[in-house]
Amino acid sequence: MSRVGRRPGDSGTRQAILSAAKEAFGTQGYGATSLRAVARTAGVDPALVTHFFGSKDGLFTAALELPLDPGTLVPALLAEGVDGLGERIVRTFLGVWDGTPGQGPMLAMLRSAVSHEDSATMLRGLLQRLILRPLAAGAGAGDPDLRAALLATQVVGLAVIRYVLRLEPVASATADELAPLVGPTLQRYLTGPLVT
Amino acid sequence: MSRVGRRPGDSGTRQAILSAAKEAFGTQGYGATSLRAVARTAGVDPALVTHFFGSKDGLFTAALELPLDPGTLVPALLAEGVDGLGERIVRTFLGVWDGTPGQGPMLAMLRSAVSHEDSATMLRGLLQRLILRPLAAGAGAGDPDLRAALLATQVVGLAVIRYVLRLEPVASATADELAPLVGPTLQRYLTGPLVT
Repeated sequence: MSRVGRRPGDSGTRQAILSAAKEAFGTQGYGATSLRAVARTAGVDPALVTHFFGSKDGLFTAALELPLDPGTLVPALLAEGVDGLGERIVRTFLGVWDGTPGQGPMLAMLRSAVSHEDSATMLRGLLQRLILRPLAAGAGAGDPDLRAALLATQVVGLAVIRYVLRLEPVASATADELAPLVGPTLQRYLTGPLVT
Repeated sequence: MSRVGRRPGDSGTRQAILSAAKEAFGTQGYGATSLRAVARTAGVDPALVTHFFGSKDGLFTAALELPLDPGTLVPALLAEGVDGLGERIVRTFLGVWDGTPGQGPMLAMLRSAVSHEDSATMLRGLLQRLILRPLAAGAGAGDPDLRAALLATQVVGLAVIRYVLRLEPVASATADELAPLVGPTLQRYLTGPLVT
């Protein structure tokens, strides 16, 4: 690594820490991962981990490397109106997962959330504040919290069955095949009458 | 513990091992739990664990303590016909989870499956062979494997959101409130036209 510029080595060091963190969070989960162990794997001083990421939460959030920006994603999904919104969410959601080799950071997030209360709290906050509630509110059919939580049951369950339990034929189906199957469920949760 | 009868102490010993196993599987997951550690917690010789449960798989299955017998559950659900089958599945499923204090063994199963490939394989087999496929086949609408997997996405997702991520209002809702919300999704997956 060449050491030029004002803060030599920063980019490489940061990347080495992130790689070690992704490995640790993904295999051991949030609770069992220590900043010290991440620093050791990355071959850097523990103080540098704090320097770059502030805290374990900061390191975790950075390690998630969400391959999307919820702040632009949700408005984009809603921009085309509510018609077909359920199918568009399925395609976008699966696109994010399928576009991540081995589903590494997404699986790491899910695993940590299922195993550790603090990760569950983080994921719940991320989902609710940045994705689910804005989607449900944007759909404009009332009851945004209930609709957001119902949406979550189907979307998170789809990920668990497809990527964790790998139940066929859902595990091998394409997003184009799954969108018309699961999309109507999301459409009803977001826009339909909930109890008929 | 009194030591009377032909095999003195068997019942208490077996129970002590099961308690230790539930604790270990529930907090550490399948992979990180060793028969030796379970035996130590239970205060028994490791050979007794093998004596009672045969293997780690055998101990895990016993520790799951499924509060239901799939062999009678599925026929009971189907006995009333397909009308309202989706809602009945929601009520039965939530009844099983809610009837288990702290959702201990069910949560342990889910946590292990998300963290460990071998547990995922066990749970996938249990779900497919004993519950999902018989339900989908019994509903008689064709495509039983696809319908079974779709059913799994919604049912497992409901458990993850309600008991793991605890997203409100789904976390605190009653089974009676959730049945008409989620039931129609299961009804469509099992009996409806899948693509309209």
